[in-house]
Amino acid sequence: MNQPSPCHTKIEINEVAPRDGLQIEARFVPTEDKVRWIDALSTTGLRRIEATSFTSPKAIPNLRDAAEVVTGIQRREGVDITVLVPNVIGTERALACQVDEINLVMSASNSHGLANLRMTPAQSLEQFAAILDVTQGSGVFINASLSTAFGCPFEGEVPEARVLELVEQLISLGIQGITLCDTTGMANPAQVKRLCEAVLGRWPETPFTLHFHNTRGMGLANALAAWQAGITRFDASLGGLGGCPFAPGASGNVCTEDLVHMFEAMGVDTGVDLDALLEVAATLPDLIGHDVPGQVVKAGKSTRRYAMPGR
Amino acid sequence: MNQPSPCHTKIEINEVAPRDGLQIEARFVPTEDKVRWIDALSTTGLRRIEATSFTSPKAIPNLRDAAEVVTGIQRREGVDITVLVPNVIGTERALACQVDEINLVMSASNSHGLANLRMTPAQSLEQFAAILDVTQGSGVFINASLSTAFGCPFEGEVPEARVLELVEQLISLGIQGITLCDTTGMANPAQVKRLCEAVLGRWPETPFTLHFHNTRGMGLANALAAWQAGITRFDASLGGLGGCPFAPGASGNVCTEDLVHMFEAMGVDTGVDLDALLEVAATLPDLIGHDVPGQVVKAGKSTRRYAMPGR
Repeated sequence: MNQPSPCHTKIEINEVAPRDGLQIEARFVPTEDKVRWIDALSTTGLRRIEATSFTSPKAIPNLRDAAEVVTGIQRREGVDITVLVPNVIGTERALACQVDEINLVMSASNSHGLANLRMTPAQSLEQFAAILDVTQGSGVFINASLSTAFGCPFEGEVPEARVLELVEQLISLGIQGITLCDTTGMANPAQVKRLCEAVLGRWPETPFTLHFHNTRGMGLANALAAWQAGITRFDASLGGLGGCPFAPGASGNVCTEDLVHMFEAMGVDTGVDLDALLEVAATLPDLIGHDVPGQVVKAGKSTRRYAMPGR
Repeated sequence: MNQPSPCHTKIEINEVAPRDGLQIEARFVPTEDKVRWIDALSTTGLRRIEATSFTSPKAIPNLRDAAEVVTGIQRREGVDITVLVPNVIGTERALACQVDEINLVMSASNSHGLANLRMTPAQSLEQFAAILDVTQGSGVFINASLSTAFGCPFEGEVPEARVLELVEQLISLGIQGITLCDTTGMANPAQVKRLCEAVLGRWPETPFTLHFHNTRGMGLANALAAWQAGITRFDASLGGLGGCPFAPGASGNVCTEDLVHMFEAMGVDTGVDLDALLEVAATLPDLIGHDVPGQVVKAGKSTRRYAMPGR
């Protein structure tokens, strides 16, 4: 086993709970609670926080306070604030708030694009071109998240060749970073290895982020497979908050503290202070009013010592 | 990435829910329900079922019907029935029921051995020698499960050298198969890879089984790492039933249907008919009276197609 390994000893985490987690919650989290929460997250060593979405308040009422959140939080050196934007208007609102990064989203499959965004992939790419016109010269990093890159809940398999074709088009447009999203937890480790090796082999200079869901329990196994293929950037959601409305009862996004715990236990530097992160994670049920799927908060770190029973 | 891979295209599953799962349940499952359940499990392609434990009824009242269960179930070609035994008396009871395999259990750490079995590792090894005297000539396969092989909840790290020393002693005694158990979900994939490579390198002829818990969300990632190191035998528990009394609220054993789902999605043949297994898994909450951690039962297989919303 002495072949050169593509595994890196450092990875970085993009915390998506404030956007991807809160958007489907049943209740609105007050703006001041969001700000306090994001401020707490930004002291834990996370490299990037997706703080909100500049969407229509009608589309996502939970994030109707996007501008107040972004202008209300403390900005810290080394922690990029990224926001999701769906269109040119959202982009202009985001730029006015001095965000560090903008995240665009499109689907790799027609059906999911139409169901989720009311746009086909081709229409999304047109929209992205218009957005890139607006962001030109702003210095803001432009990332695109490609949903259903590992399968579509309506269409099934999304061919790897189709994903690679869309990545090629995104890079040609001028998109700087790309997130490959397993939107509904359909990916398996063998597939993850193949796709990650394919994109890293073809576009070694592009920062690729992997976004997994734990819908079928494979979230951390998929993250492991991606890391083994050379990936160093991961989306994750505190407590495993968020998920897919099509799978009631199933787990959501891969859980940040569980992901950090696994990689740190393996000796991989995530940059995150896990104890500090677990403290913030422990406040989550109070913030949103219900339990979350994260495991390490319940069990403690693997280094935790228990007292012998009866002593 | 063209180096010879130790990954195998076939694995086999030992279903442990009837023993490891039921033993800590709050209520007794009636014998006829256990028999019906194990009979259903044995039609799904599982290679082996740990059906019960021949322990003192006082120690584990839930499994007080061990002999009735083993003599009541249908025996099928290709499905080995294994049972846990703690001592010579249990061994004699198990042999009288014509089991295919006997599983002994000891801890790799003193504290866990004393807390769980009231025996140090050295005392367990003495006990095993006495048991092997009784089983000699019976033709029954003798496996030993080594608890806390990846860490002890009381002592912390269990050095790999200590685990290898105990494996050596077990093989010298005449134990035929060894299960390395991550009893409280402390293992991480890097550690799993190291230990699996070490035992497979040193004892290539011994069947090693890996037993993981999902206490900290790493169950499937650890199974993946073990498989990548060349392991082909896994313990798993239907629904993720079972677990550790020291981590309330945490997940239990790695879930059989989630494990089978992951490997089958990767193109690895588990021998299991996943649809049939999911049908049995769906009956579990009724059998035991509560929900279980398994994900695939809730979300459906990754090949599941959902209807487009609003259509």
